[in-house]
Amino acid sequence: MSRSPGRKQENHKISRELFVLTYGALVAQLCKDYEKDEDVNACLDKMGYSIGIRLIDDFLARSAVKKCRSYSETADMIAQVAFKMYLGVTPSVSCSSATGNEFSLILDKNPLVDFVEELPAERASLCYCNLLCGVIRGALEMVHLAAEVSFLQDRLKGDAVTEIGITFLRKPEDRKHRR
Amino acid sequence: MSRSPGRKQENHKISRELFVLTYGALVAQLCKDYEKDEDVNACLDKMGYSIGIRLIDDFLARSAVKKCRSYSETADMIAQVAFKMYLGVTPSVSCSSATGNEFSLILDKNPLVDFVEELPAERASLCYCNLLCGVIRGALEMVHLAAEVSFLQDRLKGDAVTEIGITFLRKPEDRKHRR
Repeated sequence: MSRSPGRKQENHKISRELFVLTYGALVAQLCKDYEKDEDVNACLDKMGYSIGIRLIDDFLARSAVKKCRSYSETADMIAQVAFKMYLGVTPSVSCSSATGNEFSLILDKNPLVDFVEELPAERASLCYCNLLCGVIRGALEMVHLAAEVSFLQDRLKGDAVTEIGITFLRKPEDRKHRR
Repeated sequence: MSRSPGRKQENHKISRELFVLTYGALVAQLCKDYEKDEDVNACLDKMGYSIGIRLIDDFLARSAVKKCRSYSETADMIAQVAFKMYLGVTPSVSCSSATGNEFSLILDKNPLVDFVEELPAERASLCYCNLLCGVIRGALEMVHLAAEVSFLQDRLKGDAVTEIGITFLRKPEDRKHRR
């Protein structure tokens, strides 16, 4: 598949409001389908995973990024290139462990909740944006990086910021190498 | 709500692939929920309607368009400004009735089906993109234009193009005025 650089810029950019509202319709539908928040969260994560394993090709083709040489570089790439490209925002990144495999993406503003005021009281355990965790997990898996991804803080739940935690799961050979 | 012009360009544009894949997840979920294609279509239309009545404010604020003076101008506005803004494509418009209230938006390429190869045989009556019809209907209603909106042709079903039909429903005073 060849793509001209002009087409890239012109045809792939859209206004995000339709996406944000459509995402809201998806979450609302899942809340109708599943009584328990945990089930909605799991379903969003699973859907996100399926999206991530497909989106990675698009990301690699259009970003033209080089292979990352460290977990830290990978986390920066997700924040500065992927989030910017797909959601129009750039989270800040912090490394949250001495072992260098845990990172936090911190969003001052989460565009996905633009039209959401607050979670209803009966949905207090809902991770509204859990799809994003699945997307990141799926995309990382396709570049041979196993990771756990989850929301650590959420402004929708009254936290000061929205924080997505990424823990890269070390491969056995990594551990051996380090000893 | 005030928005600086800089922010407008910078923050609202996203890459559409995540949207297209998320939309696919929504349709797939509805296909799980409802056995009949007609029910999925109705649900997509209803969701779209709810989106359209909220999206119109965003559209009017960001497009800064003037009031349309005819159905024809309105159809052009939907195709050239709204589709471009929210989906990154510009359908061509044709007026399909002598009475001047029926229009077709013709899409050579429908970005929403980017990742869809074909509909499964058991889903032959599914209007995959029916959300769009609801969005248009809802948005038009908020500017006091009643309309019927539906897919007339669909490349996913083997048609040569994708065609969305919009029939503006004349108000009683319109008819009186014309006599």
